[in-house]
Amino acid sequence: MTTARRPQMEFWFEFGSNYSYLSTMRIGSLAANHDVEVIWKPFLLGPIFKALGWETSPFVLQKEKGAYVWKDMARQCRKYGIPWRKPTRFPRPAILPARVALVGASEPWGPEFAQQIMLLNFAADQDIDDAETVASALEQVGVEAGPVIEHALSEANKGRLRSQTDEARSRGVFGAPTFFVRGEMFWGNDRLEEALEFASLASLV
Amino acid sequence: MTTARRPQMEFWFEFGSNYSYLSTMRIGSLAANHDVEVIWKPFLLGPIFKALGWETSPFVLQKEKGAYVWKDMARQCRKYGIPWRKPTRFPRPAILPARVALVGASEPWGPEFAQQIMLLNFAADQDIDDAETVASALEQVGVEAGPVIEHALSEANKGRLRSQTDEARSRGVFGAPTFFVRGEMFWGNDRLEEALEFASLASLV
Repeated sequence: MTTARRPQMEFWFEFGSNYSYLSTMRIGSLAANHDVEVIWKPFLLGPIFKALGWETSPFVLQKEKGAYVWKDMARQCRKYGIPWRKPTRFPRPAILPARVALVGASEPWGPEFAQQIMLLNFAADQDIDDAETVASALEQVGVEAGPVIEHALSEANKGRLRSQTDEARSRGVFGAPTFFVRGEMFWGNDRLEEALEFASLASLV
Repeated sequence: MTTARRPQMEFWFEFGSNYSYLSTMRIGSLAANHDVEVIWKPFLLGPIFKALGWETSPFVLQKEKGAYVWKDMARQCRKYGIPWRKPTRFPRPAILPARVALVGASEPWGPEFAQQIMLLNFAADQDIDDAETVASALEQVGVEAGPVIEHALSEANKGRLRSQTDEARSRGVFGAPTFFVRGEMFWGNDRLEEALEFASLASLV
């Protein structure tokens, strides 16, 4: 009898990204169904967009696409049964939550914390880049906020988030969510299921 | 007993667009299954991109996205069972085929002609913007090429294609394929099924 290694999938996401919101809410149960382990990879889209020559989200820069995206989001959220309120500010800065999510990426509370922050942004229409909001999201998932935020704000952790964002860029990431399975890139919430299927199949060969 | 009107869906496509290729190959049987009538709307993406400030396809302008798109296309074609060869020229100019497709939009041979041209571009890697190629595609779907091409090249028909492209822009189209159902826009081959479901449901209310 051999012990199969559980296949892994990297999930690169950013809290300001509306399509990352969809995947953050969906990925847990889908990955469990496929018996795939999710490696949570928070990063910042801002520096990626700047490197591509854009000052902000393409959904803001392209008026037509932006107008469409909010209709699409309402429809996708209805389809998936995910709450939705169009944020009055987009894209919301989310550096502190990303730093905390990086701390949480190897902790059991990481996924639930990420969902809490996403819901604040895309269902409660609240700003998410301040210590009080992040602290209350942490408490809500049963974590003592003080030490975690202190750790998140350490120079070492700030540097890790910068490195992780650099890594995204060097691996060809140009938007979020992005999934990697054995080095293969899958872009967008629409490809979540395909990425998971690829991960499951890859574990059989 | 009431006679329900068959619901309609507009299918806006461009022969140079690889994701339009996927929908062109898939739409016939899917629409039949949903009992939805497809209104074929060929148009030109070039003037749309120019109006958005781009000199060519975003898949060319954005190197990272471009690299990804070809991997995605190979995977999508495998998934759908559609032949695929990465075109050596992208995006291929396709003005003559679009003019002919506009003539064919109200003819029974229109859909099959569109598939022939798409296959030449994305499965046979052939240039498609010349009279000989277009004529042979027409003959292949049982149409006498000469009169159709003559009609396609008439000033009236050229003007209609310009108007149709203008209409796309004024209705907020920013890429292809794009579907409209009762004024609602759905963008991208990934939304084809949703657009058809929306069309079927709309016919019930």
